[in-house]
Amino acid sequence: MSIIVVGSSAFDDIETPKGKRVRILGGSCIYFSLAASFKSKSKIVSVVGEDFPKNIFSKLNKKKILTEGLVVEKGKTFSWGGVYKTISEDPETRFTNLNVFEDFQPEIPNSYKKNNKILFLANIDPDLQNKILDGSSANKFIGLDTMNFWIASKRRSLFKAIQRVDLLTINELELKLITKKDSLERAFSDIFKKFQIKYLIVKRGSGGSMLVSRKNFHWIPSYPFVNLVDPTGAGDSFAGALFSHLSKRNSFTEKDILDGMIYGSAMSSFTIESFGTERLFKLSPKELEGRHKKLRKIARI
Amino acid sequence: MSIIVVGSSAFDDIETPKGKRVRILGGSCIYFSLAASFKSKSKIVSVVGEDFPKNIFSKLNKKKILTEGLVVEKGKTFSWGGVYKTISEDPETRFTNLNVFEDFQPEIPNSYKKNNKILFLANIDPDLQNKILDGSSANKFIGLDTMNFWIASKRRSLFKAIQRVDLLTINELELKLITKKDSLERAFSDIFKKFQIKYLIVKRGSGGSMLVSRKNFHWIPSYPFVNLVDPTGAGDSFAGALFSHLSKRNSFTEKDILDGMIYGSAMSSFTIESFGTERLFKLSPKELEGRHKKLRKIARI
Repeated sequence: MSIIVVGSSAFDDIETPKGKRVRILGGSCIYFSLAASFKSKSKIVSVVGEDFPKNIFSKLNKKKILTEGLVVEKGKTFSWGGVYKTISEDPETRFTNLNVFEDFQPEIPNSYKKNNKILFLANIDPDLQNKILDGSSANKFIGLDTMNFWIASKRRSLFKAIQRVDLLTINELELKLITKKDSLERAFSDIFKKFQIKYLIVKRGSGGSMLVSRKNFHWIPSYPFVNLVDPTGAGDSFAGALFSHLSKRNSFTEKDILDGMIYGSAMSSFTIESFGTERLFKLSPKELEGRHKKLRKIARI
Repeated sequence: MSIIVVGSSAFDDIETPKGKRVRILGGSCIYFSLAASFKSKSKIVSVVGEDFPKNIFSKLNKKKILTEGLVVEKGKTFSWGGVYKTISEDPETRFTNLNVFEDFQPEIPNSYKKNNKILFLANIDPDLQNKILDGSSANKFIGLDTMNFWIASKRRSLFKAIQRVDLLTINELELKLITKKDSLERAFSDIFKKFQIKYLIVKRGSGGSMLVSRKNFHWIPSYPFVNLVDPTGAGDSFAGALFSHLSKRNSFTEKDILDGMIYGSAMSSFTIESFGTERLFKLSPKELEGRHKKLRKIARI
C-alpha cells in the first residue's frame, strides 16, 4: 500500500541560532515523503517551477518516492524565508513567494490511482485540500495538517475539509484557534463535538506529542538527546514516518497510531539535527532503529 | 520523619504575559515547604528582614511548617524582580537586592535536630550549602539545587557540595555548564564520572523532567492541561512535593523517586497557574490527588 501526499515543495532560506542556509530544498511533501520512504512508497502531488533542479527528482525516485504528480510549471518554485530567533519558538517569516504555487490546482495523476488507501493533506490552502478530497474516493485513512494562517483566513473551507478526514495533526496554538477555547482540556472535548475526526494529534516540539481520541489521551515524548539545529520539517517528517508505519501495518487502531508516533518522534529527531532535508537524505535504517528502540523504552511502550 | 530545607525567602516583583505582581511572597524554601506540607513536616532554614509580615509565619505554621530557623535580621528581606518575556523561557532579572541575605550564615536550630533524615539545599550560595553540610551529620538523603550564576562564580565550592549529596536537581542548561558537554548524552555520563551522586533530575519546564542514574534513564511528563500564568517556583514546588513523598515512604529507590516526580509534576502544575504562592496556599488535597492520578495514567506508571 502506498501513500498519496499533497503539499508544498519549496526553496527555504533558514536562519537559526546554529547557522544559516540559503535556497535549500524544503516543503511539506518533500519532508513527508523522505520520512515515509523507510517503510512505504509515497506519491507526491505538488508543483515546482522551472528553476527546480532535475537531479532532485531522481534523488527522490531513488528513495521510491513517485514524482509524476510533482508537476513543473512555468515560473519559479515557491520560496520561503524564516528566522528562528530562539531554537524553541516559531520562526519569524521574512518572505513568502508563492510563485507557481499561487495558481496550483492539484490533480492526482492517473498513474497514482491504484492501491491507494492512505492520503495525507499537508499544510496548504484548504480549498485545495477539499479539491483533492473531491477527487479521491475510497480512502481508508486520511490525515490533514494546517496552520494558523488558514484557520484565520479560510475557516469555513478548512472546517469542511477537517470534517472529511480521520486524523488532524496540529499544534497547541492551532487547536486553540480552531476551537476558540483557551483551555486545552476544553479544546479537546470541543474538537470532537465539532468534527467527525477519529483522532487528534497535538504537536508540542520538544514537549513531545499528544494523541487524543473521543475516549483516550496519550503522551509520546520527543527524543531528548537531540542537538537541535533547525526545527523546519519536524512536523512533516513526524507525519511521514507515522503514516508510513500505518501503511505498512495496514491497520489504524489507537495502538497502531501510538506506535507510529514513537517512530515519528525518532524520525523528526534526526530531521532537526541538520538544516533542511540534509539529515533525512543520509539517514540509515540502523540509526533510525536505534533511536526508535530507545524512545520506546523512554515512553514505556 | 521531617525535611530540613535551606533556601531563600523573598519578595518578588514578577511580570509575565499574563500580568504583573509587586512584592509578593516568594523564595525557594517557601515554595518548597508549602509543596511539601501535604505529605510531610518541613523545617525552614532561611532569613528575612524586619519588613517581613508576622502573619506569614503563622500562615506557614498552620501548614505544619516549622519556622524557628527562619530568622529575622535587621534590615530588609531579599527581593527579586523578573520579567518573563515569553511564558516558556527563563525570566530576565530586573533587580536582585540581597539585603539580609548578603550576610546570611545559616544555622540549623537545636529544636530542628531530632528526627531529620532528609535535607534539601535549595539554590543558594554553595559556600552556605557546604556550611550546612558541615553541621548536619547522619542525613539519609540529601538533595541539592543550584543555578548558572553559582556554576560560573563558585564552581569549586559548588562541586564540593555536589560531591556530598545524593540527588542533584538542575535544568538542562545548568547540566551542560557543569559538565562542559554540549550533548545531553555525554553530559549524563560525565556527571556520574565527576560526582558520587546517585541520581540526577533534569527539569525541562513543559517538557517534563528526566531522572538519570548510573544505569537508567526515565522521562516524567509535565501536566499538559495547564494554564501557565507564572512559572516562578515550579522547580522548588516540584522538589518539595518529591521530597515529601520520599519522606513519607522513608525509602529512596529509583521507583520511589519516579513516583515522587509524578507527584511533583502534579504539584508544580498548580503553582504555575497563579502568581507566586497564591495557588499553593489554596490548594486542596483532593484537587492535587485528581491531577496526580491523571498524570500517573499519562506517564504510564
